[in-house]
Amino acid sequence: MSNQFVYRFDQGKNAKKELLGGKGANLAEMTRIGLPVPYGFTISTEACNSYYNAGESISKEVEYEVLEALQTLEEKTGKQLGNPSNPLLVSVRSGAVHSMPGMMDTVLNLGMNKETVEGMAMLTNNPRFAYDSYRRFIQMFSNVVLHVDDFYFEQFLEEIREEKGYASDPEMSAEDWQEVIQGYKGIVKKHAKMNFPENPKEQLFLSIRAVFDSWNNQRAKVYRRLHKIPGHLGTAVNIQSMVFGNMSNDSGTGVAFTRNPSTGEAKLYGEYLINAQGEDVVAGTRTPQPIATLQDEMPDVYQQFVETCLLLEKHYQDMQDIEFTVERGELFILQTRTGKRTAQAAIRIAVELAEEKIINKKEAILRVEPDQLNQLLHHRIDDSYERKRLTKGLPASPGAATGQVIFDADEAERLAKDGKKVILVRPETTPDDIHGIVAAQATVTSRGGMTSHAAVVARGMGKACICGCESLTIDLKLKQFKVGDTIVYQGDIITIDGSTGEIMLGETPMIEPKLSNEFQLLLTWADEQRKLGVRANADNPEDAKKSLEFGAGGIGLCRTEHMFMDAHRIPIVQEMILAETYEEREEALTKLLPMQQEDFEGIFEAMQGNPVTIRLLDPPLHEFLPDKEELLVEVTKLQMTDPNSQTLKDKEQLLRKVRQLDESNPMLGHRGCRLGMIYPEIYVMQAKAIFYAITKVTEKGINVKPEIMIPLVGHVNELKEMRQLVINAGVQVKEETGQEYNYLIGTMIEVPRAAITADQIAQEADFFSFGTNDLTQTTFGYSRDDAEGKFLQNYIENKVLPENPFASLDQEGVGKLVETGVKLGRETKKDLKTGICGEHGGDKDSIQFCHDVGLDYVSCSPYRVPLARLAAAQACIKNEQKQSISDPLPI
Amino acid sequence: MSNQFVYRFDQGKNAKKELLGGKGANLAEMTRIGLPVPYGFTISTEACNSYYNAGESISKEVEYEVLEALQTLEEKTGKQLGNPSNPLLVSVRSGAVHSMPGMMDTVLNLGMNKETVEGMAMLTNNPRFAYDSYRRFIQMFSNVVLHVDDFYFEQFLEEIREEKGYASDPEMSAEDWQEVIQGYKGIVKKHAKMNFPENPKEQLFLSIRAVFDSWNNQRAKVYRRLHKIPGHLGTAVNIQSMVFGNMSNDSGTGVAFTRNPSTGEAKLYGEYLINAQGEDVVAGTRTPQPIATLQDEMPDVYQQFVETCLLLEKHYQDMQDIEFTVERGELFILQTRTGKRTAQAAIRIAVELAEEKIINKKEAILRVEPDQLNQLLHHRIDDSYERKRLTKGLPASPGAATGQVIFDADEAERLAKDGKKVILVRPETTPDDIHGIVAAQATVTSRGGMTSHAAVVARGMGKACICGCESLTIDLKLKQFKVGDTIVYQGDIITIDGSTGEIMLGETPMIEPKLSNEFQLLLTWADEQRKLGVRANADNPEDAKKSLEFGAGGIGLCRTEHMFMDAHRIPIVQEMILAETYEEREEALTKLLPMQQEDFEGIFEAMQGNPVTIRLLDPPLHEFLPDKEELLVEVTKLQMTDPNSQTLKDKEQLLRKVRQLDESNPMLGHRGCRLGMIYPEIYVMQAKAIFYAITKVTEKGINVKPEIMIPLVGHVNELKEMRQLVINAGVQVKEETGQEYNYLIGTMIEVPRAAITADQIAQEADFFSFGTNDLTQTTFGYSRDDAEGKFLQNYIENKVLPENPFASLDQEGVGKLVETGVKLGRETKKDLKTGICGEHGGDKDSIQFCHDVGLDYVSCSPYRVPLARLAAAQACIKNEQKQSISDPLPI
Repeated sequence: MSNQFVYRFDQGKNAKKELLGGKGANLAEMTRIGLPVPYGFTISTEACNSYYNAGESISKEVEYEVLEALQTLEEKTGKQLGNPSNPLLVSVRSGAVHSMPGMMDTVLNLGMNKETVEGMAMLTNNPRFAYDSYRRFIQMFSNVVLHVDDFYFEQFLEEIREEKGYASDPEMSAEDWQEVIQGYKGIVKKHAKMNFPENPKEQLFLSIRAVFDSWNNQRAKVYRRLHKIPGHLGTAVNIQSMVFGNMSNDSGTGVAFTRNPSTGEAKLYGEYLINAQGEDVVAGTRTPQPIATLQDEMPDVYQQFVETCLLLEKHYQDMQDIEFTVERGELFILQTRTGKRTAQAAIRIAVELAEEKIINKKEAILRVEPDQLNQLLHHRIDDSYERKRLTKGLPASPGAATGQVIFDADEAERLAKDGKKVILVRPETTPDDIHGIVAAQATVTSRGGMTSHAAVVARGMGKACICGCESLTIDLKLKQFKVGDTIVYQGDIITIDGSTGEIMLGETPMIEPKLSNEFQLLLTWADEQRKLGVRANADNPEDAKKSLEFGAGGIGLCRTEHMFMDAHRIPIVQEMILAETYEEREEALTKLLPMQQEDFEGIFEAMQGNPVTIRLLDPPLHEFLPDKEELLVEVTKLQMTDPNSQTLKDKEQLLRKVRQLDESNPMLGHRGCRLGMIYPEIYVMQAKAIFYAITKVTEKGINVKPEIMIPLVGHVNELKEMRQLVINAGVQVKEETGQEYNYLIGTMIEVPRAAITADQIAQEADFFSFGTNDLTQTTFGYSRDDAEGKFLQNYIENKVLPENPFASLDQEGVGKLVETGVKLGRETKKDLKTGICGEHGGDKDSIQFCHDVGLDYVSCSPYRVPLARLAAAQACIKNEQKQSISDPLPI
Repeated sequence: MSNQFVYRFDQGKNAKKELLGGKGANLAEMTRIGLPVPYGFTISTEACNSYYNAGESISKEVEYEVLEALQTLEEKTGKQLGNPSNPLLVSVRSGAVHSMPGMMDTVLNLGMNKETVEGMAMLTNNPRFAYDSYRRFIQMFSNVVLHVDDFYFEQFLEEIREEKGYASDPEMSAEDWQEVIQGYKGIVKKHAKMNFPENPKEQLFLSIRAVFDSWNNQRAKVYRRLHKIPGHLGTAVNIQSMVFGNMSNDSGTGVAFTRNPSTGEAKLYGEYLINAQGEDVVAGTRTPQPIATLQDEMPDVYQQFVETCLLLEKHYQDMQDIEFTVERGELFILQTRTGKRTAQAAIRIAVELAEEKIINKKEAILRVEPDQLNQLLHHRIDDSYERKRLTKGLPASPGAATGQVIFDADEAERLAKDGKKVILVRPETTPDDIHGIVAAQATVTSRGGMTSHAAVVARGMGKACICGCESLTIDLKLKQFKVGDTIVYQGDIITIDGSTGEIMLGETPMIEPKLSNEFQLLLTWADEQRKLGVRANADNPEDAKKSLEFGAGGIGLCRTEHMFMDAHRIPIVQEMILAETYEEREEALTKLLPMQQEDFEGIFEAMQGNPVTIRLLDPPLHEFLPDKEELLVEVTKLQMTDPNSQTLKDKEQLLRKVRQLDESNPMLGHRGCRLGMIYPEIYVMQAKAIFYAITKVTEKGINVKPEIMIPLVGHVNELKEMRQLVINAGVQVKEETGQEYNYLIGTMIEVPRAAITADQIAQEADFFSFGTNDLTQTTFGYSRDDAEGKFLQNYIENKVLPENPFASLDQEGVGKLVETGVKLGRETKKDLKTGICGEHGGDKDSIQFCHDVGLDYVSCSPYRVPLARLAAAQACIKNEQKQSISDPLPI
């Protein structure tokens, strides 16, 4: 810990982001490179931590350093805090290490009181501006620092406006604002039980304390949990002299991205408001102008701003999100930071920055967050569908979504937990709505622009969002919205397209995503880097084709049970299960064989010589039978209404069989290779179907690389027996067809015992595929079906578990078993092929783990393949970078 | 491999049992110490293996050595094989390394043919004996070597007897036997499709081959599997000159144990038949005389026999099972081996041998097979019950049992698999009935003595058995037996007492076993040796008392859910579960608290200062609710009959709740500490009940050592949170009562993740208790409820798994996790207390494993405590012995 707590912007050039926060470090850096940044200083994150360590109290040291820095600030600006003839006004803003937009508190115009407001009025020769600023300050300060609800101020202001017959604020005169100020002070006295503090230094320290406190408010905590930001980092506080975009009509304020954060296009993108303060843009209460129009209104300022943007982007080697203010024609840069962006934009920006040689290819690969790619790889509205558009807003975050309209964040969360798809519709969103945005498929607001709260948050999450859809008249009380004559009630289904801003009634047909050219290019770069293979889980020719299209190097998991579930087949499957004798079962299997064979042919053809791992039947047989409870109800009814019918007798017999197959814990029951052990004829049928399919497809001149996988092996003897069964079927088909073929036989490692005895199991396996879904279930002793509804959510929310282990591989527990399995397996068979085929195969952190333990490939859903390719490359590059850091220096 | 295949008895003094088999080694050893053993030689087990290796063919080398040894035998006896004027007759017997009584084949009287029988008749001056011997030989040889069913011979013999009007064999004359011989030869010709081989050398080699073949017959394989005897050992063949117990009325044959194999009493125990061959005794077709009466009939022989017995027992340092024959007043010892015995006898013999200084205490401990103790530790018929005895047979193997009468071994096995208790009732048993004896609770035979097949096998298994119950008239066709006028049908329930030989109709009250004085003494010796603590699993004061009585050092597992299951409590428990609010739940818990407290008080009092490990609530809550299917049927019926009733509404609501709590895989669901995490109030109630109970019992001046156990922990955070919950409850009760107390908090290690992360978990645990039942379920991915009915039995029968992993700890898989858990746990906490509380805690091999990995204690059912004490001592002694063998020699 350093012994300095406060840094002037022009002192911080070597100070770290960890110390000054993102915003503070940037202000110092911008100051260093000579940009027009208003003077100021930063109170470090260490001061924040010392505040908490001292039981939420600001130490003498910090106080002293703040006062000292303030004095320097007063000297530089030539103004003094509280001096009526030349008052210094400052902003007090939070600034954490990781950007947490809108989560923590900010106070603007600090330093105003009944004396300085008069000075401001005189100095600017604009009393209306001065009183407006003062009332804004009272409202903001009281809300943020004294926790007086905004509602009281807004209500009072509206009453005054109505009284005066005004439609909007600009009609208010200086005198009107003075009246408002009196009323505001009364509100403060009533609700905060204190007089509004007129002493600017008191204002300052109360505000600093409020910013520190806001680090631990509820919404900041939720945000941190969501974004995995540790709680011990603390926030810095930036004190900066105010500049005023609301001082005159040649003043203004705006926010701009150096490239389009939605598409990535290399073109300045942003908005501004004339005669306004920054909060007006961010809050979304007035709809701002596009940045390009600034060129017409203030050509010099615009030119200067464009040059500044280019400079900042080159300097930071990334797209920047810049806040600026124009005070009477003079440009000030208030803030710059790496801009949040959609996945689409992230890809285009990374690729174009690399092509512009600003960054290299490896850096470009690292620039795209794999988790974000989901939004590119989900369905969008079918182009051929003629859209019956209800209305249109701003396309704030791309992607299409369908769901019921819900007007409340809590309600949205509740319904989403029940598995419902909802679309959150709000006049505007605030940080208190975050959980609703998380839970919803998409968010729609009637107010606010592309940089409003809803837009920024939704883009960050990769969720579709439409903002500023002003044609919506939302009635929160009646829970409905109107567009013209159309009324949409809570619970009605709508579809939105976040890429166009369109809203449609009901559901619309969706089509599958395609990869953009930039994305293709980036993935080609990724493929050059990665060592880990990427395969897809696909059970039919369509998915197989999609996998190849997305760049999968093969199929890592083809689940044969999905083929059984087909409506035409299920009666035959049931016949097979209900068979009383071996002969009856054989008969049903004989019917199933050509069907399975056809499936395999389709998949082999689609995969064009890439390896295909086929897992033999895995789930318990009763999954293919009618539901026990429904059957029980039917039988009970028949017993009462038609006790002598043949139907009853048949149903009773079926119920008996269903009960016989019923299991207490099917997950741990008679499934996987245990089926093959007891009913070898089922596996023999499947193996033959595979072999016949190989023969057929090979005849067409297509190469086939089948890998037959025996599921749920716990003891090497199971694999030994099933392996022999498959080999025998293979020999039989070879003799029948006279055709030669090669194939591998391996196993899923999905119970702990298999991992622990992997050295033995490897003796009978050509490959291991870690089935980390089931391995997670057995290692934790969690039934996923039960855990997620009953306690897992609670565990994650309360940090009992750091993550949902079904989403991200539990490296300490399950991962240890994977590591053990690989190590023991390779002790027996040096070149044993190893992969993973649980859902974790599509999770970034899990992919890094798979790379680290030396697996040969991951297999995931086709839509996750691009993510996996990218994450696999990142794993490689990150390890290289770690390596080069830890490499000893040459002597 | 040695290059000698055949050893004369007087050559074998240093030869090993592995080479000569048990019987061969004994014959050689008895010859060496000068006992009257008929001359002979042994064909080694290596010859048997060479026979199998050569594709079941006897090599030239073996043939040559046999002929050479035969020549020596002829020289020593002065007789020649096939010489009509002085014929040598021999027995050919199997003799494996481990005794497998009755499992393999034997041929007696070999060397007889139409010429030698005449010679025998002349030499013995007893043509009747000679022809009888010849016909016995034809029958036995044809059955064993030529596989002609005995039935044909018996049928023919009976026809002849009936024709002649004889009641029994002794009435048959020499001429009658000659007629039988002619008939027998016809039977051989018809069924074996060959003439009976008259050439004695051909007879000899065919018999040797038959003995080799019998090593792999079906019943021998079953026996080996049952007794874990490896298949590669092979059997030796013993060729020995015949002596004849059936030559005259001063001849005889018998079997005797040097001590009573049923009670262990140090008194000669056995039977003999005058004028009979050994097979008559063993087969149980004639009921023999008690050995003591031999003193009257042949005082000299008896005296010589008693001395021989003493000599043999001293020599072999153990109770011996001796076969002898008297030929015209001359005693021959045919065989001696360590006698099989009941557990009761094993204990008494071991203790008394130690007291007689024949063996030392450690040796005495090793002499008792822990698995056998079960029979001493099960219920016996209540003494106070006045027995209504149906009839009485020989008390062949002690213990009481109740079950349905079944007359067929296959049927007995089938019913037992369905969980039925059966008593196998047979005229006599043969080795083909073994699976029925295994499956049945007890066996009853109407013929045969204390050394008959049924008796020997049942004693070995520790199963109750009554033999020679001649008052039973069994009709196998009608499936019933008669005793006087009473008819007992298949399926009727009877109770038998194997210690008295009594048979009763129906069930009788049983009482719990007590330890004999010898057993107590042996266990005291064991306690001196063992390092492993032994605790009991007990859920109530009665079981706690029983545990102490059996020598448990504490309670290792007190399951609190059993307390919830009480009929008075279950409605309150349901109230608690169905509670809609926290308050309702609290109310129910408040009612449950004093009940649980009372239970704990009882257990603490009973345990008198020994530690008591209490596991907080573990099973899923729906286990306490009504059955879902029953409820569904009720609701369906009410919907049809009384659709507007309140009853229906109530039942529907209950069904909803039951469904809500229903789980796909309850084993892996919301149970264990996951309940405590979501409903902390339940665990708080249980913790408080424990603390109040401690206070109460301590006030009585009784020491209390509670250990509170949190079940199903998978992540250290769960334990951390639950630990704090318990500590807080402890502080609260301390404040309320003003009384201090100490306690430990630990956890069950029962999911793989807990074992893998035991280093972390140990930070929050004072002790680990390995719940190896659940750990086996999760490590294998087996639901025990499903596996045992669906595939596990098949796996064990087909040797996919070497053992049932729920009965004997799977050391390769589950054991590895236990080992890892102990190792990691102790890395964090050097003196972490560790134990095991699954069923494995009462299994001998698992106990050895627990000792080896350094656990502090095992905990098992109270009735298994003595077994565990003994097994723990044996583990220690065996390791010492291994140690001393592997210790380098001093230089």
